[in-house]
Order: sequence, then structure tokens, then C-alpha cells
Amino acid sequence: MGYQHWNYDTLHTFCVDAFKRFGFTEAEADIIQDVLLTADLYGIESHGMQRMVRYHKCIEKGMIHVDARPEVVFETPVTAVVDGHDGMGQLIGHFAMELAIEKAEKSGIGIVSARNSNHYGIAGYYANMACREGMIGLSCTNSEAIMVPTFGRKAMIGSNPIACAMPAEPYNFFFDASTTVVTRGKLEMYNKAEKPLPEGWALDKNGHPSTNAPDVLANIVAKNGGGIMPLGGSTEKLGSHKGYGYGMLCEIFSSILSLGGTSNYCMTGGRGNICHGFMAINPTFFGDAEAIKRHLSTYLEELRESPKADGQERIYTHGEKEIAAVGDRMKNGIPVNDNTMVEVLDLCNYLGLDFGSYFGDYRPPVKKDVFKGNY
Amino acid sequence: MGYQHWNYDTLHTFCVDAFKRFGFTEAEADIIQDVLLTADLYGIESHGMQRMVRYHKCIEKGMIHVDARPEVVFETPVTAVVDGHDGMGQLIGHFAMELAIEKAEKSGIGIVSARNSNHYGIAGYYANMACREGMIGLSCTNSEAIMVPTFGRKAMIGSNPIACAMPAEPYNFFFDASTTVVTRGKLEMYNKAEKPLPEGWALDKNGHPSTNAPDVLANIVAKNGGGIMPLGGSTEKLGSHKGYGYGMLCEIFSSILSLGGTSNYCMTGGRGNICHGFMAINPTFFGDAEAIKRHLSTYLEELRESPKADGQERIYTHGEKEIAAVGDRMKNGIPVNDNTMVEVLDLCNYLGLDFGSYFGDYRPPVKKDVFKGNY
Repeated sequence: MGYQHWNYDTLHTFCVDAFKRFGFTEAEADIIQDVLLTADLYGIESHGMQRMVRYHKCIEKGMIHVDARPEVVFETPVTAVVDGHDGMGQLIGHFAMELAIEKAEKSGIGIVSARNSNHYGIAGYYANMACREGMIGLSCTNSEAIMVPTFGRKAMIGSNPIACAMPAEPYNFFFDASTTVVTRGKLEMYNKAEKPLPEGWALDKNGHPSTNAPDVLANIVAKNGGGIMPLGGSTEKLGSHKGYGYGMLCEIFSSILSLGGTSNYCMTGGRGNICHGFMAINPTFFGDAEAIKRHLSTYLEELRESPKADGQERIYTHGEKEIAAVGDRMKNGIPVNDNTMVEVLDLCNYLGLDFGSYFGDYRPPVKKDVFKGNY
Repeated sequence: MGYQHWNYDTLHTFCVDAFKRFGFTEAEADIIQDVLLTADLYGIESHGMQRMVRYHKCIEKGMIHVDARPEVVFETPVTAVVDGHDGMGQLIGHFAMELAIEKAEKSGIGIVSARNSNHYGIAGYYANMACREGMIGLSCTNSEAIMVPTFGRKAMIGSNPIACAMPAEPYNFFFDASTTVVTRGKLEMYNKAEKPLPEGWALDKNGHPSTNAPDVLANIVAKNGGGIMPLGGSTEKLGSHKGYGYGMLCEIFSSILSLGGTSNYCMTGGRGNICHGFMAINPTFFGDAEAIKRHLSTYLEELRESPKADGQERIYTHGEKEIAAVGDRMKNGIPVNDNTMVEVLDLCNYLGLDFGSYFGDYRPPVKKDVFKGNY
């Protein structure tokens, strides 16, 4: 299994064409591709092109309704609840974060909770939308149950990422992480790469540690038990209850406030049933926004300049690695796994797009029987 | 080293008397003791009576100003910045959370950031204040640098807890946890108990793992290097960068928005220089608050009832253990370490209070040379 590097424009054109062919408008297709390719540019391969197959299958099965339009079902000057009507998660997320930003512009804070959505890509994309407007952006989402609560053996909580972005110099603070030890996407990548999982990531159906990626993924989909450990592992000694708690914070802002489906009901009954939370905070409502930005920038610099552990050369602040990855990928291309390219070829055949018109003479290898998940 | 059990009323009377003798009013003393004894009732021994010595020494040294009154220095209908003027952290925290609740009552959301404060006890106390009013309460604080950032060897971030409480039946969701693997208070308890630390908690001054509690504590105070690992450990494999990121979220809501001291400047220059963040969210601004509460209650019940790992009998939801601990301690008394009682005796002598009038014939053992921290 190898990787092909494609330039950004090639993948951009392909993605826009594909989503338009699914029935999305040009503007909608552009939002969706931007969420996906931002993940690839950031080096978060799990949430980029390799997820095309998920959207393909979910649209094909009718789980994602291409024509759905998000609807505001409850609203105040600082809050809103959005019903996504089973639409594309990226469009619901974009709509809801724009609404939160608009409220924060006028009222200082905007919190929007969205229900009846689908997988929305990287949480950090939406946090960044607020950051570009000079605000603190926060976003979280629930997802198909994959986190096993402390002392449990059945996944009951999603990977439930929390993202936060805030303006700073020379680069913004940008934090985006699942509340599990790792994301499901990471398991999917190990699975595609046919490698055993590191110790301390996953549990088998009886609640015992496992390094078998396809077995863990298959058990999750079949709801047999097992899943990924909360951040902090599977015992209280190293803080399992903390990762579990952060996962619950995601549920509160996504599924609970919107009265939507909690993670244990996501991807059930032929529906995505996923919920998201969005918050925009306008720093001018706390005083001098420029002074606040400088204050954060100073602290980030102090962190980067602080003494390194023996054998380490660099301390990163959150967002630095993503900036470096964007530079690398715009110059050297975006690496895409051959197994993902097999899925892209399938997708071209399904949509009637000419694979060669995007990817030239390259043809992906014959597909192996790789477990892909329930889509 | 042993434990004495004291009934709640005994400790309550002692604490109120002690804080009044320091110069606080009856109402102020009552708030301070309530924060401290709530920690002991919840079973969070590290943040209860054992911290009396810290407040004693900080007041004695002039680090905590007994007469300070918190001041609102910036305010909008949904936000405020509070300057604590080096007062008692509990009083500043109580004031700021009341302000956040008042804003959330009227406007739906209240976010208050406070600077120039001191250690405020358990973050969860303030989250609970909002929860008692039917709201979601969140609170976080920075603290003396104790968390070593990923790949570092110098503590640059506090234990930086995040707490969240939200109404539910039969008991509220209540989450309160440091963003480090464990709190400094836990290290203090291992130190008082003269036990080695578990693996995976702390780093020595070169950034190597250590189980030596007094050495780690002494290095932190002397700013020699070392400290506690972020939740997720000291490498990215198990998510060190995530605990580090959650610690940063605390800084944003406490020190950054208030333009106060970041953790690396807490407890320096003879000042506490600690900052806190508070948020109250009124669920009626998202629709039917009773339906939202029922929805959370259902999910919590489903978590508790989900299948247990082999060998486990129970899955807890956050807040259950605290409810059980309160019941136990109100019936059987609050356990206080003999070493803590030595400090209480010192305090009585310092304040001119009659130790025997509270604790009868009990006398603590002769004090060992236990490292107590920089207070």
C-alpha cells in the first residue's frame, strides 16, 4: 500500500465536481470540499479525502438528504437551535457557525446547538470560521458511539471532539481533538494500512485491551461491544473519567441542548442523527481585543521558548503543526492512500465522472478486502 | 500517620471562627468554609481542610488581602471582567459566578473572567452555584505552573481544572477535573502519606518520569523544572497534547480574556496572581428547560445501565460519587489526616483559638518534616 501525492487544485476540482454531481449547488459543494480538504491540508488524513467513501455511501443510502436545508427552530439574540433535517453535516455546521458568529458580532456571544445532522468533518473548521472574524470559536460534535465509558464494555459516547480557535500572532491558537485517546479515523487509517493498533487505544467486546483494528471497528458497527478508550485510558488512575467527562461536555452542547440524538443513537435506524455545538465569543465584549490577542501571543511564545525535555528539540503550541502541514502540502501535494484512491475510482464510476480527467494515467491497485465501516 | 473523623458541624464551626479571626465578616467566612468543606464532603480531601495551611500562610504573608473587594472593571449584558485585587479566591469566585448567573437569568448567557485572585478551592463549587439555579454552570481556573507542556521539562501551565454542572434527575451531572493527569493536591496527599507516586503522573526536573512526591513538589516551587504530566501523559501517543490543549482552554477563559497573569506567573513576586473563568447558560434560552433536563437524565441513566467491563460492577456518571461521599461523611464524619491536624493546631495557636474547644482531648502527633509547598 502506498501514497500518491496530488496537488490541491486537482483534489479541489474533483471534490467540487463530485458533490455537484450528487446534487449540491456550486456554493454548497465548495463549502463541503473546503471542510474536507482543509483536513488534508492540516495533515488530518483521517478526515479528508479518505472520508469521501463515507459521504458517498451515506448519500447513496438516503441517510444524507442532499436537498435538506437547515432550519432555525428556536432563537434568541445569543442562542439558537438548528434542525438539520438530515442534511449534509458540513452545510449544517457552516450555517450554524455563521449564525453563532452573527450573534456574537451583535451581542457578544452566540451559542448554537444543531440536531438531525450528519458527520460534519473536522470540528476545528468551524472554530476557525469565528477565529477569522477575530473571535474565539468553539465547536464540538457527537458521533456514532465509539468511546467506552470508564468501567464499561459497550461504546456509548462518540469520539466527541472539542475544537477551539483564537486569534494570535504569528499564528492562531488552534486546538482540535477527540475526547477519546484517538479518533475512529485513526483506527480506520491503521486498518487501511493493515497495522496493529498501539497499546492503550482500544477495547475488545469484553472490555479488554485490543490492538486489532478491523475487529474493534467491526464490533463497533455491529454494536457487539468494545471501542476506543476515553482520553486517560480505561482506568481512573490515569484519568479515564476525565476523557469520559469531556465527551459528556460535547453531548451537553450538541445533543442535550438541541434535544437531538445522543451518541448511542447516532448512525442507527438508517439515520445519521448526529448533533453539533457551536460557540462564538467576541473579545471586544471583554475589553481591548488587540490587547487580549497580544496577551495570548506572548503566552504562546513563552510556551514555545520554555526548556525542552531531554532529547526534544521543540515545544509546539496548538495550531503550529497545521500551519506547517499546509505549507508542505501546498508545495509537495496532498498524500492520498492507494486504498482511498480505489474508493475515489468507485465514486467516479458511480457518478459518471472521468477518473482520468483528474488523475491522469494513475490507476489504483486492485482493492483489498479492507473493512470500511457501516456506510 | 492516621485519620481522625470529625463531624461536619465541628469543622464548620472551627472554619467560620478561624476565617472570622483572620478578619473576614461572618458572611465571607461562611462562603469560604462552604467551598472548603464541600470539597471534604465530596471526598476531595486535597481541596478541603488540608488546604487551611495554604490560606493561613498566604494571609500571613500578605499574599491574600483580607479587606480586598472584587471590582467589575468591564461589563456588558452577557460578559464581565472582575479584578479581585488580591483578595480571597473563594470570595472573588462567588462574586463572579453570581454575576454570571444574574446575566444568564436576564440575557441567557453570562461569561465572567476574573484576574488578580488567589486559589479559589474546587472549581466545581462555582459550577454548582449555576446548577442550583437550573442552569449549566462552568468554571475553570489557572494556578501555579505545574503542568509540563508536551516535550517540555518546565511546568508552564497550572493544573487548570474545568468544572461543569447541569441539572438532572436523580442527581445532577457534575464534572470537576484538572487537565493534568492528577492535581497538585493529589501529590500533596501522597507526600503527606509518605507514599511513592504512581507511574505516569509526574516528571523530574529533566523531564523524565518520577515517583518522588517531595522532590517533584520541591522542584515545582523552586522553579527547577519538572511537574505533572498533562492528561494523556508526556507523549502524543496517548494524547498528551490534548490535556495540554484543555489546560490552554482554561487559560483563555481565565487569564487571557481578563488580561491577568498566565499560570507561569502565578505565585510569583509575592502575589497569587491567579485568574478564573465562569460561565452560566440558561437552558430556557434553548427551549423547554424541563425537556432538556429529562433528556440529559435519560442519557445518564442509559450510561449507568450500559454493559460493564469484565470484573466491574458499576458504571458511574459524573457526580454520583460525590453524592455518595456526602451521605457517608454526614453520617460517619469527615476524615482529616493527622498531619493536617498538626497544621490546624498551629493555626489555632496563631489565631488564639482554643483547639480543645473544637477537637476535645485529641492532640495531633508530633509533626514530621513534610514538604508543604511555597506558602
